[in-house]
Amino acid sequence: MQDSIGIFDSGLGGLTVLKSLARHFPQESFCYVGDIARLPYGNKSPETIRKYGDQVLDFLHRQQVKALVIACNSASTMYLGEKDFKGIPLLNVIEPGCRAALEAASDDKIAVLGTSATIRSGAYARILKQLRPQVEVLEQACPLFVPLVEEGMLNDEVTQTIARRYLTHICQQRFKTVILGCTHYPLLRQDLLQVLEPGTQLVESGDVLARELQQLFASGQLPAAHGPSRSLKVQITDLTDHFERLALQLMSPESIGVLEKIVL
Amino acid sequence: MQDSIGIFDSGLGGLTVLKSLARHFPQESFCYVGDIARLPYGNKSPETIRKYGDQVLDFLHRQQVKALVIACNSASTMYLGEKDFKGIPLLNVIEPGCRAALEAASDDKIAVLGTSATIRSGAYARILKQLRPQVEVLEQACPLFVPLVEEGMLNDEVTQTIARRYLTHICQQRFKTVILGCTHYPLLRQDLLQVLEPGTQLVESGDVLARELQQLFASGQLPAAHGPSRSLKVQITDLTDHFERLALQLMSPESIGVLEKIVL
Repeated sequence: MQDSIGIFDSGLGGLTVLKSLARHFPQESFCYVGDIARLPYGNKSPETIRKYGDQVLDFLHRQQVKALVIACNSASTMYLGEKDFKGIPLLNVIEPGCRAALEAASDDKIAVLGTSATIRSGAYARILKQLRPQVEVLEQACPLFVPLVEEGMLNDEVTQTIARRYLTHICQQRFKTVILGCTHYPLLRQDLLQVLEPGTQLVESGDVLARELQQLFASGQLPAAHGPSRSLKVQITDLTDHFERLALQLMSPESIGVLEKIVL
Repeated sequence: MQDSIGIFDSGLGGLTVLKSLARHFPQESFCYVGDIARLPYGNKSPETIRKYGDQVLDFLHRQQVKALVIACNSASTMYLGEKDFKGIPLLNVIEPGCRAALEAASDDKIAVLGTSATIRSGAYARILKQLRPQVEVLEQACPLFVPLVEEGMLNDEVTQTIARRYLTHICQQRFKTVILGCTHYPLLRQDLLQVLEPGTQLVESGDVLARELQQLFASGQLPAAHGPSRSLKVQITDLTDHFERLALQLMSPESIGVLEKIVL
């Protein structure tokens, strides 16, 4: 998989990123690792997240991918400012997300939704304020969103009731730009739009990472693929019916070339 | 910890079991391992659950505990019928739970609530029918209950709305004996009783395991503690603020003697 782009997530949520990148770059091959055996990362300690993250990146490194994308926001908080991993270009999802949100916003107010680990890290607020010191940031942990997505409770009244609780301050304080700081959250798009003020903009990781990769290609830092056809490979650290169903929900079955279990 | 009883859970839910056993056996010392770094077990494959389970049991075995209690229901499904682990008496939570439910029931109808892995295993239904072939069993997976407990959403309207969904058939078909097939569920007792028919009996793992241990003591298979004072040791594979809070919610802080992080 020497010409592939590696994508790493704690689970299958990052398939939303794979899907977006595969659409933006139809020539490129991708190699996705989901660390399902040990998910969720969102409630682990920084030391444990970094340890597991390094194991996954090492695994992708040994497969000689040409770039590494950390789709998982909780893992990304451990790699801020790191431009490469053992010499391979490394992208995390936080810094590009901040830049995209600031460009999209019509005011100086950005809200961030994420897992407990992502919000506790304070990474989004810190980087947003580095980029634009006067920005007002509201960070909100939404720990039930991942289990709700994994139970398929989309367009669901219960999900919207829980969303209403999490989003109270965002609505009351009229934040109109919201970073979806977790790969699972794009699947809740409809539920969130039901609850948020009309006209609220949602910033999603897939689009943001596509822009970053585009810049790497344009600047010549990353060579474009030259093979006759591309491949999409999904490797996960555990294999259950549940996750197979979820994978099919997230990606159309014919688009995944290889789905295999690996041991880290 | 040569005179201790080892308790194993995927997380901290099993502290409900530790609390119950510590109350029943005030002389005994306990050594608890919560595999927090890799929880939840409830959505992993059988192979992965067994692999992680063996690692934890091995760890407790090396600490020379005198008995091993698997408090985690998902892990218990992997050790059915196994009476010892490397020569040390081994208790799982499923078989004793089935016996206790059949004794408690005034009819031949038993409902079981559990994680996806526990329910998918079909272990409860299989054992209940072995013990009483005419019993009618209704098994219901409740995958959102663990995250709801871990977010502290107890005595909460949202939790009750979700419970109402999960318990629809149990209420409609008038099941009056319900096994709480997950260590977290006793914390939802009040929420469940709000939703279930009045007079429904809940069978909890802590009580059930206390009875089993009592029998091992009474039969002489397990020597009683003889030290001057007992100790309670909690060892977890990851340490986060979140789980410290949860631990304190589940056990009073002064009752935990040692809380330490271990690597498996």
